[in-house]
Amino acid sequence: MENNNRYDLGISTIKKMVSNEALENIEQMKTISPDFWEMIISFGYGDLYSREGLSNTKRVIVTLTSLITQGAFEQLEFHIRAALNVGLTKDEIKEIIIHCSGYVGFPKACQAMMIAGKVFEEVTEE
Amino acid sequence: MENNNRYDLGISTIKKMVSNEALENIEQMKTISPDFWEMIISFGYGDLYSREGLSNTKRVIVTLTSLITQGAFEQLEFHIRAALNVGLTKDEIKEIIIHCSGYVGFPKACQAMMIAGKVFEEVTEE
Amino acid sequence: MENNNRYDLGISTIKKMVSNEALENIEQMKTISPDFWEMIISFGYGDLYSREGLSNTKRVIVTLTSLITQGAFEQLEFHIRAALNVGLTKDEIKEIIIHCSGYVGFPKACQAMMIAGKVFEEVTEE
Amino acid sequence: MENNNRYDLGISTIKKMVSNEALENIEQMKTISPDFWEMIISFGYGDLYSREGLSNTKRVIVTLTSLITQGAFEQLEFHIRAALNVGLTKDEIKEIIIHCSGYVGFPKACQAMMIAGKVFEEVTEE
Amino acid sequence: MENNNRYDLGISTIKKMVSNEALENIEQMKTISPDFWEMIISFGYGDLYSREGLSNTKRVIVTLTSLITQGAFEQLEFHIRAALNVGLTKDEIKEIIIHCSGYVGFPKACQAMMIAGKVFEEVTEE
Amino acid sequence: MENNNRYDLGISTIKKMVSNEALENIEQMKTISPDFWEMIISFGYGDLYSREGLSNTKRVIVTLTSLITQGAFEQLEFHIRAALNVGLTKDEIKEIIIHCSGYVGFPKACQAMMIAGKVFEEVTEE
Repeated sequence: MENNNRYDLGISTIKKMVSNEALENIEQMKTISPDFWEMIISFGYGDLYSREGLSNTKRVIVTLTSLITQGAFEQLEFHIRAALNVGLTKDEIKEIIIHCSGYVGFPKACQAMMIAGKVFEEVTEE
Repeated sequence: MENNNRYDLGISTIKKMVSNEALENIEQMKTISPDFWEMIISFGYGDLYSREGLSNTKRVIVTLTSLITQGAFEQLEFHIRAALNVGLTKDEIKEIIIHCSGYVGFPKACQAMMIAGKVFEEVTEE
Repeated sequence: MENNNRYDLGISTIKKMVSNEALENIEQMKTISPDFWEMIISFGYGDLYSREGLSNTKRVIVTLTSLITQGAFEQLEFHIRAALNVGLTKDEIKEIIIHCSGYVGFPKACQAMMIAGKVFEEVTEE
Repeated sequence: MENNNRYDLGISTIKKMVSNEALENIEQMKTISPDFWEMIISFGYGDLYSREGLSNTKRVIVTLTSLITQGAFEQLEFHIRAALNVGLTKDEIKEIIIHCSGYVGFPKACQAMMIAGKVFEEVTEE
Repeated sequence: MENNNRYDLGISTIKKMVSNEALENIEQMKTISPDFWEMIISFGYGDLYSREGLSNTKRVIVTLTSLITQGAFEQLEFHIRAALNVGLTKDEIKEIIIHCSGYVGFPKACQAMMIAGKVFEEVTEE
Repeated sequence: MENNNRYDLGISTIKKMVSNEALENIEQMKTISPDFWEMIISFGYGDLYSREGLSNTKRVIVTLTSLITQGAFEQLEFHIRAALNVGLTKDEIKEIIIHCSGYVGFPKACQAMMIAGKVFEEVTEE
């Protein structure tokens, strides 16, 4: 029971950040490992994203930069969509990727920009 | 000659971000490779940090996160000091590191926090 | 001739670890580069996996963790299937991934869990 | 209050794994960021190391492998000492590093073996 | 205007290295972010590949090795084709990958060899 | 006995690449783990560096680039000295690092250039 507050806080935070459709997509993790799902929500969104001291916009900048730097491109689309939802503009996201090019090199920055381009196109069409 | 504007712009930008002492420290690169020094300033500070579209505060968040994610800890002190100079608070820098822990794991986040702690202590004493 | 023992030992070791089908799949490497194929078997399975001093179960834990940490997800399915063959349970593999989340961050751990989930489903259906 | 159980469980777990001296060393984190210290203990040792389903020996193998693979060598000594405390032998730790060489390459494996050699020597002298 | 020379030099250099078809493929970046496209050409091909002091063959070896080491496999096909165009043979490219295995580990080297095998097959058929 | 040829070939190859002093330095590995030492020589220098199909100069370029890309800076001095011994000039080594900046980002390239600068100074004084 003791974790309920962290989990509930996490769910409430993630719901403000991503669409219902995106949340449903990642909820397949619940079937594979309920314990891991609980950790993602309680730690990632309950403990981290719900903290004060840094705006959600800035937290998303940290998240995007870290994904690009480590080449975790499978997770990038989800977080670019979250970035748009918390108020970053397409141009700011492109600037983040451009700034990354000097710190992670062009190969990863290029891959990130291709994914961003694809997401921006889909978002426009939706 | 054509690069002068980029280099001059870069020097003017970096001077707003770091102390004279810090700038002198990294200028040893000029002796090892003048060409590489020129690139660091022209590309890193003339092309990237001087761009519009993202505040310097947010650019520094990208830089710090990328360094922590790739484990480039030798460069972290320089950029934490720059972060303080462009207006990030100590608490915000700690929040960036804490947020990183979920995305890069605790070992790199711990190492970053140790370095931040050392810089904050020195800054207080200066 | 001198390498025959290492190669033969490697083939004998890998045959205990993976299905014939999986072995046939990776044997396409033989066509691309016979020398590289020889090294994979002689060094990877003849020199490393055949050593005493650490159980095969523990060697597989090292392998899985290293793949997850470096984000080598294209190779993960092959080694998850090998892990099941040498006696790790599905629950233990999930625990390895969950433990990894604190050391490599959630993005890579999530990607690993998705792949594990897919493999476990296929294995059940086979 | 709700986190107390996770934190207390974490402290109880880490005390079984490392010496008092080692614990005191890392407690300097408490001064730099009490919140981050709380997370390290509650999440790292309360949520992860305290879980069932994988022996502590195997969890330490995951930890060591992940540190070696990501090149987090500043943290390696602490965890090699913990590995010895939970019952891994020096020879098993060397085997883990040797096995890693095929998965992360020799540079990182060499660096890990040098650190292990230094720790083993100190442990013998203590 | 000042960047024209760098951009023009970059375009002239990349045209010597890749086919028209390959260049057209990556020009989609121009639509997503014209600024980023300008940087890729001006910095990557105008500033770096156009420098004297290292043959293009050796620069391509640096590029391939860096991509393999960081696991940037999405970009590898483009640069393997460029490598063939500047005069590296298929056998030399395979040797680069084989040599990498000792420095980055077998998982990334295997993935690189699979991609090289696919490109070599397509090149033969073209 | 069967490995003798690989080991002897490796020793003969490494002796052509590094000074006696450098070889003695790394031979401390023999004391920590004789088996691992045997692998470094037999695989790294017997199997890889002794292969035909790529000049030693080009193999060293692969090695340096891979070390810089993965941030294995503790090993870099040893291999920069080997690079000078097999005939790369200081200027070529600087060019390799400069070219890397576009592919791995400036932080790792800067760190590599600092180390190269230090080695070049020591070499001049020797």
